[in-house]
Amino acid sequence: MSKHIAGPEIERLIQLLARLPGLGPRSARRAALHLIKRRETLLEPLSKAMQVAVEKVRVCSVCGNVDTSDPCTVCNDGHRDLSTLIVVEDVSDLWALERTGTMRVYYHVLGGRLSPLDGVGPDDLNIEKLLDRVAGGNVREVILAVNATVEGQTTAHYITDMLAGFDVRITRLAHGVPVGGELDYLDEGTLIAALQARA
Amino acid sequence: MSKHIAGPEIERLIQLLARLPGLGPRSARRAALHLIKRRETLLEPLSKAMQVAVEKVRVCSVCGNVDTSDPCTVCNDGHRDLSTLIVVEDVSDLWALERTGTMRVYYHVLGGRLSPLDGVGPDDLNIEKLLDRVAGGNVREVILAVNATVEGQTTAHYITDMLAGFDVRITRLAHGVPVGGELDYLDEGTLIAALQARA
Repeated sequence: MSKHIAGPEIERLIQLLARLPGLGPRSARRAALHLIKRRETLLEPLSKAMQVAVEKVRVCSVCGNVDTSDPCTVCNDGHRDLSTLIVVEDVSDLWALERTGTMRVYYHVLGGRLSPLDGVGPDDLNIEKLLDRVAGGNVREVILAVNATVEGQTTAHYITDMLAGFDVRITRLAHGVPVGGELDYLDEGTLIAALQARA
Repeated sequence: MSKHIAGPEIERLIQLLARLPGLGPRSARRAALHLIKRRETLLEPLSKAMQVAVEKVRVCSVCGNVDTSDPCTVCNDGHRDLSTLIVVEDVSDLWALERTGTMRVYYHVLGGRLSPLDGVGPDDLNIEKLLDRVAGGNVREVILAVNATVEGQTTAHYITDMLAGFDVRITRLAHGVPVGGELDYLDEGTLIAALQARA
């Protein structure tokens, strides 16, 4: 948008909104206008909610999750099964698994994946604390819920090696056909995995 | 998301983000996480930009545009042609027309369209000031750039009637085939209009 259409404050708001995932320049303009028209009902509450997040959000010192408390809401939940730990790359993976509502267990967020090309080594990930937690003695199973990418699998291999000395079962998410998925659209690697793991 | 995954402050942020156009519950979660992870580079600046908007945004007393100054940036621009006024339903329409960069003229934002079913009558729209501006004497042409909907056209008819006593030319946007559009996908009404207005 030309700088002559609206004041610099509005231009800046649009530019920042455009940096949100899922919003391009066009939808950022629409979002800005939507906000400006709802000053009291949306713009002001959202600005305040963000300010609260700025002040309160921290990384959980136990698991690496981000939350407004430390330990985080999940780690603070006393009604979970201590014997299972799910290792994920990112907080978004933790959220995704929690949405399934199936496993009432604890998590460990690595904060990334091993990626020599990007200069991400073991020391850049939250692995040390994972070993400490497993060494704590309550954990019986570690589920490596990393992404099914080469880097994710490399990370899983590395962690498996590091946990070799501990008396824990190490498992991974199953590969297979997504529920509701059509075979015709699946890649061969997934189909082969699904065939091999048939039951 | 279950209330047990993250603190209430994060849940609230997600809920408010989900009210932005173009963001659903899933993308609002992704956006919230994106923001939280970029506290200093995005979350805090965006929160501040919104607060500035809360404090500074106002409706232009001349044309009905929203901006951080009154008169707005467009009305304050002395390098535009005073003889033409483009009437639009909404600020977003003003922005859309400005993006074309073709007409360096002034605008008048109605703030809606006549809609008896929704209880929107002439008094609810910014029409009185439009008549005042035209009565001011500089305007030679009023372009009714309202939407090509029944309500938009009703609004255009009403304004045309109200401007009948003034010595101004009243025009409307041309109907026709969108540039790059394929005839096969167009509705018959548009095709008929495009045929009739052929040149």
